Amino acid sequence: MSKASPLLVVGSIGLDTVETRLGKRADVLGGAASYFSVAASFLAPVRLVGVVGSDFPPAHTELFQAHQVDLAGLERVAGRTFRWSGVYAPDFSTRTTLDTQLNVFSDFRPKLPAAWADSPYLFLANIDPTLQLSVLDQTEKQGQKPRFVACDTMNFWIEGRRSELLRLLARVDMLLLNDEEARQLSGEANLPAAARAIRALGPRAVVIKRGDAGALLFHEGGVFAAPAFPIENVVDPTGAGDSFAGGFMGWLAREGDTSPATIRTAMILGSVLASFSVEDFSLDRFRRLDVSQIRERFAAFADLVHFEKIKL
Amino acid sequence: MSKASPLLVVGSIGLDTVETRLGKRADVLGGAASYFSVAASFLAPVRLVGVVGSDFPPAHTELFQAHQVDLAGLERVAGRTFRWSGVYAPDFSTRTTLDTQLNVFSDFRPKLPAAWADSPYLFLANIDPTLQLSVLDQTEKQGQKPRFVACDTMNFWIEGRRSELLRLLARVDMLLLNDEEARQLSGEANLPAAARAIRALGPRAVVIKRGDAGALLFHEGGVFAAPAFPIENVVDPTGAGDSFAGGFMGWLAREGDTSPATIRTAMILGSVLASFSVEDFSLDRFRRLDVSQIRERFAAFADLVHFEKIKL
Repeated sequence: MSKASPLLVVGSIGLDTVETRLGKRADVLGGAASYFSVAASFLAPVRLVGVVGSDFPPAHTELFQAHQVDLAGLERVAGRTFRWSGVYAPDFSTRTTLDTQLNVFSDFRPKLPAAWADSPYLFLANIDPTLQLSVLDQTEKQGQKPRFVACDTMNFWIEGRRSELLRLLARVDMLLLNDEEARQLSGEANLPAAARAIRALGPRAVVIKRGDAGALLFHEGGVFAAPAFPIENVVDPTGAGDSFAGGFMGWLAREGDTSPATIRTAMILGSVLASFSVEDFSLDRFRRLDVSQIRERFAAFADLVHFEKIKL
Repeated sequence: MSKASPLLVVGSIGLDTVETRLGKRADVLGGAASYFSVAASFLAPVRLVGVVGSDFPPAHTELFQAHQVDLAGLERVAGRTFRWSGVYAPDFSTRTTLDTQLNVFSDFRPKLPAAWADSPYLFLANIDPTLQLSVLDQTEKQGQKPRFVACDTMNFWIEGRRSELLRLLARVDMLLLNDEEARQLSGEANLPAAARAIRALGPRAVVIKRGDAGALLFHEGGVFAAPAFPIENVVDPTGAGDSFAGGFMGWLAREGDTSPATIRTAMILGSVLASFSVEDFSLDRFRRLDVSQIRERFAAFADLVHFEKIKL
């Protein structure tokens, strides 16, 4: 990992209470930036910017540390940590949010440590676009720019912060979002049409995440379809999209390259990390994950889509 | 095509009235066996068993003939041809059946011409499992068996003809069905689990069709994921699944082989023919399709999923 470039992520860190048909977990580690950081940490050095309350368990901090996630940007403030609680349908087709408490997250104003302003790879996880913009400003104020900026968003911001979101999109290299969000943002039902419309707003690459139907990448290297790994023992889908983003950005930072070919490979690393993420509650699968398992599943993805050339 | 083996299909031939956001067509050629035959005809010689009424337009018969589809098994009886009418939502997410008239199809009892009993490749399109079984009986009564039998089915038969369907599944090599049908048949929400349960009923291969999310193959060669081709100009999705089956079975018949590697390639040929099918109403895209375009789109599918190997 010595040649890998630093990868900065800004986003939520929370305590989740989750119920699926396979069990229930209370106050486990969650939040987009948590899944992203630990997933990416297998590929590149991660810098985490976020906020937690005084109730944040030391064991969770230790998990980040065990994965060499740099916590110089992690604020600890008085009060309770962000909390989310939800329950999944037995077939995982839907999930119901039971409770959301922003707590210390409601006053979150991301502040990059001075030494991090030159981070070459940057992921703006799903938070208020106003905050995402303020992070971009902090990375650009010294006359430099990150080499690659990707962001996520959600229906809430598409609806309620549209103009801020559009200002953000004009300044990022890539947007990751799910199919419904892509339709909502673009007004186009057809996904290739939606991606074309979104690219016209700024990002040179758009990744549309489709859960167990995989992910589509639209960029200057054409269209790329990454399958989802068929997993029979799905335990908890929470954080799969953020783990995808972590694997994706981790690969770019590791390679120090954003060519179309590297971005395609990053789609598969994202899919690999997402496929592990759902195999256990919270970030627990990552606790017993190593590079050899990542290598093995990458090979399984290659096999999953392999077919021979033909003569016609 | 000289080395290709004959491919027999039994199924519906109809006159469709279809409306999508791009237009409306009345009494155009439709039916599973129609889409299957013409799609497969680009790859192998097709034998068609079905029934039409006295109102079946000669122009439709001529389309089959132009594609060298052997019509020795096509019955023409007094009465009206099977008719279906439907309308698609503007975003193609749902379709509503407005009218179904079985007409001459309600008394359909498939009869194979004597010379066709030894057809090596057989596709039993979506009809009453009792009739699918009777076709199988006709191919096996001379002490021989087809080399590869695939069948389709639907929710109506899974619910109403379950025991007959189970008898059929015990005797076929492959079942093609969509994701909802796979869940209904197996009682499993998870698709890999559903496929495992269905394979335990008999078929050594199961193909789960997921529309614009592609198709999954579960067989002795592992799992294979075929993407759907991202098509911006979808005109009419009717018959896409049957065109998929036609391309799939056409490739097996052309190669005279059912090895796992050939079956994977067949998944892509199926996806290629399906992707063309939706680009126009009825079978109209096939009228201006040639092998060079099939070759080109096959290459586009290879590019769609291509990524480089990595060192980790």
